[in-house]
Amino acid sequence: MKVINLAEKLSTFSGHWQPRVVGQFNGHDLMVVKVKGEFVWHKHDDTDDFFLVLHGRLTIRMRDGDVTLGPGEVFVVPKGVEHCPVAEEEAHLLLIEPSGTPNTGNAETAAPRRVV
Amino acid sequence: MKVINLAEKLSTFSGHWQPRVVGQFNGHDLMVVKVKGEFVWHKHDDTDDFFLVLHGRLTIRMRDGDVTLGPGEVFVVPKGVEHCPVAEEEAHLLLIEPSGTPNTGNAETAAPRRVV
Repeated sequence: MKVINLAEKLSTFSGHWQPRVVGQFNGHDLMVVKVKGEFVWHKHDDTDDFFLVLHGRLTIRMRDGDVTLGPGEVFVVPKGVEHCPVAEEEAHLLLIEPSGTPNTGNAETAAPRRVV
Repeated sequence: MKVINLAEKLSTFSGHWQPRVVGQFNGHDLMVVKVKGEFVWHKHDDTDDFFLVLHGRLTIRMRDGDVTLGPGEVFVVPKGVEHCPVAEEEAHLLLIEPSGTPNTGNAETAAPRRVV
């Protein structure tokens, strides 16, 4: 029952592509993440993937075309759609996924979910 | 599969306490809303209530105490918890609730969900 200040949470770590859980909502984790460079192509068969850019710019490559988001812009990758997030410069994001979803779509290669 | 620019969506209307659906995520509506003044005390028995302040300040009164959020701050009201949102000046919010959830917790008094 605490207010979650997203910028304050982001200030507590520096690694890229390592989401931090900042809260929960209806069985989902609310996460902040810093990204830079290219992630891996992946998909989530059982969940949509929510991205909100808080700082910087993010391109989400998909097989049918790319989208690019700036601050205050949201994109939802539908479940089952292959995508590859890319950021030329560091970007900060709010992510929402069901609790326990591996960030690569594969539990073996996923980053652990850390709470801040 | 479109980028959702939250400020652009908010610029298309002016009424208060009338959420507009801007996208979907895992059976939930993503909504933007402009608020000013005091809403009604209510609760949602079946869902948490996600608030992200995009502009301005929002106080969420609860029976056990109030919280106040500014831009970039998130608060999740747990399901079943009575709350009353209040904004002295106009504030802009991102809300996430399961599709079809009445904004007052009561279908008879709820604002219709309009899509922008």
